[in-house]
Amino acid sequence: MPSVRLVRRYVFSSAHRLHSAELSPEENARLYGKCNNPQGHGHNYAIEVAVTGPVDARTGFCCDLTAVDSAVRRAVLDRFDHQDLNALPEFARLVPTGENIARVVWDKLIAEGLPLTSVRLQETRDNFFEYRGD
Amino acid sequence: MPSVRLVRRYVFSSAHRLHSAELSPEENARLYGKCNNPQGHGHNYAIEVAVTGPVDARTGFCCDLTAVDSAVRRAVLDRFDHQDLNALPEFARLVPTGENIARVVWDKLIAEGLPLTSVRLQETRDNFFEYRGD
Amino acid sequence: MPSVRLVRRYVFSSAHRLHSAELSPEENARLYGKCNNPQGHGHNYAIEVAVTGPVDARTGFCCDLTAVDSAVRRAVLDRFDHQDLNALPEFARLVPTGENIARVVWDKLIAEGLPLTSVRLQETRDNFFEYRGD
Amino acid sequence: MPSVRLVRRYVFSSAHRLHSAELSPEENARLYGKCNNPQGHGHNYAIEVAVTGPVDARTGFCCDLTAVDSAVRRAVLDRFDHQDLNALPEFARLVPTGENIARVVWDKLIAEGLPLTSVRLQETRDNFFEYRGD
Amino acid sequence: MPSVRLVRRYVFSSAHRLHSAELSPEENARLYGKCNNPQGHGHNYAIEVAVTGPVDARTGFCCDLTAVDSAVRRAVLDRFDHQDLNALPEFARLVPTGENIARVVWDKLIAEGLPLTSVRLQETRDNFFEYRGD
Amino acid sequence: MPSVRLVRRYVFSSAHRLHSAELSPEENARLYGKCNNPQGHGHNYAIEVAVTGPVDARTGFCCDLTAVDSAVRRAVLDRFDHQDLNALPEFARLVPTGENIARVVWDKLIAEGLPLTSVRLQETRDNFFEYRGD
Repeated sequence: MPSVRLVRRYVFSSAHRLHSAELSPEENARLYGKCNNPQGHGHNYAIEVAVTGPVDARTGFCCDLTAVDSAVRRAVLDRFDHQDLNALPEFARLVPTGENIARVVWDKLIAEGLPLTSVRLQETRDNFFEYRGD
Repeated sequence: MPSVRLVRRYVFSSAHRLHSAELSPEENARLYGKCNNPQGHGHNYAIEVAVTGPVDARTGFCCDLTAVDSAVRRAVLDRFDHQDLNALPEFARLVPTGENIARVVWDKLIAEGLPLTSVRLQETRDNFFEYRGD
Repeated sequence: MPSVRLVRRYVFSSAHRLHSAELSPEENARLYGKCNNPQGHGHNYAIEVAVTGPVDARTGFCCDLTAVDSAVRRAVLDRFDHQDLNALPEFARLVPTGENIARVVWDKLIAEGLPLTSVRLQETRDNFFEYRGD
Repeated sequence: MPSVRLVRRYVFSSAHRLHSAELSPEENARLYGKCNNPQGHGHNYAIEVAVTGPVDARTGFCCDLTAVDSAVRRAVLDRFDHQDLNALPEFARLVPTGENIARVVWDKLIAEGLPLTSVRLQETRDNFFEYRGD
Repeated sequence: MPSVRLVRRYVFSSAHRLHSAELSPEENARLYGKCNNPQGHGHNYAIEVAVTGPVDARTGFCCDLTAVDSAVRRAVLDRFDHQDLNALPEFARLVPTGENIARVVWDKLIAEGLPLTSVRLQETRDNFFEYRGD
Repeated sequence: MPSVRLVRRYVFSSAHRLHSAELSPEENARLYGKCNNPQGHGHNYAIEVAVTGPVDARTGFCCDLTAVDSAVRRAVLDRFDHQDLNALPEFARLVPTGENIARVVWDKLIAEGLPLTSVRLQETRDNFFEYRGD
């Protein structure tokens, strides 16, 4: 059967601060700039979740859409939306950069059993991070 | 010669209803939810048609743009725009899901002879379907 | 107290067909063009609902946001989304043009008691209709 | 001379939390919902600043664009971008709702001497607040 | 009859250069900055044309849409699209700033007899000019 | 280490004209249509620059963001923004089509040492060119 890639976009709003425990205060300030401000800041994040599968001849669907939505909701939105990412256990030892958020979202959705192809995180209108699991 | 991918976006507005003749009424209702409403509904669809070719040293073009536009117009827009997809022969035996619309568009543009790389269909602002012919 | 205008955007997907019972078939065809195709077509509609009120000094809100959302959901989205507008009683004697949809939405939200300032309906990406109740 | 309205859009990313000192914990939780989460969250805010003036016959400009940009930068962006709004003196006694942020931006730009017509704040992709000084 | 405002968006791509014959070279350079570069530059312009009229009870239309489209095409798009604005007679004595382009579009569409309410010109993604004829 | 793709979008506004010295006037007119108008025209271009690298465990970054920004600024924006592309040495013998602009941007950013994955140029809202270096 031919295989189609379905992409669904979801949004969430969170606070974060870029600060690495492995760097000195000076290194943190230089590397992260204003993203290192102690009070933190925040973003409207958007994630584009791509799943791929063969198109079912009877239903015309390549994936169980309800399963995708509920996995993303349970694993990502319910945990990240309207939260401070730095206060979450997921980022206790991981700086919540776009790169790391994309990877954490990937790992969570893989653990949910989704046939995941890529995760694309938009942090600001001109800044995107894409992870494909490799 | 180096090869460039050209992507052109086109829009059309159509009605559709998701209903599979191979499923019971209960299964249809459960699987497709409100998309199974008997009266149908509709969308502003956007398709991004990607074609690829070597850049011509004299013209700087990788494709015959006029040919792409007229193929998409003749094969897709003139047939789908301001129509009910379920009433078209293309979907007489095929549920007009995003997956199947993307595949039908692909097949039509391949039949037109385009050097097609991918077809990406946007159904709603957060829902996309991409087909690459495999 | 200073007054702020809150605008909330909502989306719904519906089928419609432009056809007036007061016009001859030829007039309908000429006036509405492809929007008069007998099978109908559809759109992803977006409505921007603007409400205005004095900012409450204690809460910092100009309106009861929950009331706005539930009024729009009950009066508009639950009735129009994934439906054929022509099959609804609201449009039994009213051609579902953008103008008339905007007016019907306005009337419904006024009946819900919202402090409405304007309703802006987007039908396609380049086509908007705004009604201010006068 | 004919008068033209110039609108410029600017973006900034901030954290905030909705919590009113004049409400009980239960009222705060009920009124603000997840926006009341103790850790706070954040947004990519966009502001559209509208200024109006007669078009200068020699320059074709209705406003001193450099003055607009530097006033917005100095009074708003340099203070709010990559900050926690709740930690700023501007919001020490003011809940940083969209309504109040729009009003504070208005007051700051009026104090800068801009010929301001309106301030429109976008908080999320479907949520806007507009203040016209009355 | 209730009155509805219809807004239609159109796009055109043009070159322009900001340079005033009434200013010295130094004043031109200081005032217009890089927009004064002798070679010129260009933009994808979008115009939102707003017309207003009472909704016709038989047709559901507030305006003759075909007339709006053909007036904009004839008076604006056919003249400005893929042209250098500075080389056009419209801007022989008028600096093609956003303010002046909006005014020229307004005058042209008024001359076409449209029931015009406003013209909004977008020059770049964050820069807009609105003219209402006063 | 897992590898993440970072995409950054930048914008610039330039004039250009499509005209090939290797084609006759008639061929130029037929091939390029209104893009061959002698006076030239212009666009708001957007480029999406994609770079890829392993995520640094200490910083959470896959690339030196400051280096990406300054390379794009120095090699592309400072040279192309508010210029006439046809007047630049880069396009002295190269027609400034979207294909060729994307290739020139690619070559410049490779020369800057960026770990480049792709360059995507948007010329108008429905027209994109992507080059991956092969």
